Amino acid sequence: MPRYKLTIEYDGTRYAGWQKQPGQPTVQESIANALLKFTGEVIDVVGAGRTDSGVHATGQVAHIELCKEWDAYRVMQGINFYLFATENEDEVSNNRISIINAERVNDDFHARFTATKRHYVYRIINRRARLGLDVGRAWLVAEDLNIDAMQKAANYLLGTHDFTSFRDTQCQAKSPIKTLEHLKVERYGEEIRISTYSRSFLHHQVRIMTGTLALVGKSRWKPEDVKAALEAKNRAAAGLTAPPDGLY
Amino acid sequence: MPRYKLTIEYDGTRYAGWQKQPGQPTVQESIANALLKFTGEVIDVVGAGRTDSGVHATGQVAHIELCKEWDAYRVMQGINFYLFATENEDEVSNNRISIINAERVNDDFHARFTATKRHYVYRIINRRARLGLDVGRAWLVAEDLNIDAMQKAANYLLGTHDFTSFRDTQCQAKSPIKTLEHLKVERYGEEIRISTYSRSFLHHQVRIMTGTLALVGKSRWKPEDVKAALEAKNRAAAGLTAPPDGLY
Repeated sequence: MPRYKLTIEYDGTRYAGWQKQPGQPTVQESIANALLKFTGEVIDVVGAGRTDSGVHATGQVAHIELCKEWDAYRVMQGINFYLFATENEDEVSNNRISIINAERVNDDFHARFTATKRHYVYRIINRRARLGLDVGRAWLVAEDLNIDAMQKAANYLLGTHDFTSFRDTQCQAKSPIKTLEHLKVERYGEEIRISTYSRSFLHHQVRIMTGTLALVGKSRWKPEDVKAALEAKNRAAAGLTAPPDGLY
Repeated sequence: MPRYKLTIEYDGTRYAGWQKQPGQPTVQESIANALLKFTGEVIDVVGAGRTDSGVHATGQVAHIELCKEWDAYRVMQGINFYLFATENEDEVSNNRISIINAERVNDDFHARFTATKRHYVYRIINRRARLGLDVGRAWLVAEDLNIDAMQKAANYLLGTHDFTSFRDTQCQAKSPIKTLEHLKVERYGEEIRISTYSRSFLHHQVRIMTGTLALVGKSRWKPEDVKAALEAKNRAAAGLTAPPDGLY
């Protein structure tokens, strides 16, 4: 059956994450529902990764198989049409998902298994005043953050390590060994962006790394304490899990 | 009475604009209500300018007078506390307004009359796919926009002109003569930002300039057509008013 790669953008605030769950609005199910209306087919939407409730995406990758050949652009427009369609013309759609690209791919393309890199950005707003424009879209940290210290600490996490200290206790990955390829801390005015990529991550790894780097930024921890936390191989040794709001 | 300057950020999506209106949620009234709870006083919140329904702010300036002296930081935190307070602890506040700065100012400071410049940014997302993350926060233009042509057209609007073609027919300003100091069109990937500043603007001026520049970007108009529109001194000669969503 013809296979299509979808690139998906969403504001995760109103969704209980990517993965289908009974009785909860999820990104995967919203797209499957739009596909059902568009093609009349019940289609499995295979994502490159799951995102937690409240986490956003600027380019989540997924694949689908359709019964017949469609022009890829029509697939994108068709899903988007039914995502945004509302019963009532005057109503504004509550949907916050958009298919930003669709491509015809070969059968050996698999969103999860073919993925060679997963990119995340974590947005922190570093100021004392509460969030207005960025409610649900960034983590507010009121204390001044020293990004040089954060970057120094981040460098200890680069490379291949046992990331047990930086995985959620619910994480189901077989091995805690991961290779972290990139972890950068940059400031743009009051906004701090932590960007990272790797072949794969453990559950909550980016959020726990962020929560831990924030401790260094606030000078509660020294950069070397992050090295010690990593070596402890114990979730309790690292910092708190940063909220989902800032993760893209 | 001690006077304070407030700098305010808001997502205007849920508000019927800045200006108080009976039976509608407005930014001005939300802040006045928070001030009433905080100080027990009925306070007039004087804004530097009004914004329309759906228009956002990253740094709207206003001033207030309080009966007694407060530390400016406490004023900021106090208003924010009551803006975000909800009756029920489990409820998430629907508020999208934050006071990002408060300062004690002299009595000769007046948010509207002292303002020497008003800055606006208009965000266009230039792509074919619908908006996911930026619903209500940008204007989606599907056709490719040529920003060099847009900038060339924008340059005709700089300086002192009769902007009758670029003011809403409801505009109540006495004179249509304004001096446009800055109008720049820049592309950041799929996002186009039109930034402008001036001592003051006519009603809908930024949105009409944006709607008109978009016609040039799509090659429906030549840059010189904007000059002709300006010279026509007739609202019908310019382009459509761009939606409020993209204006900050």
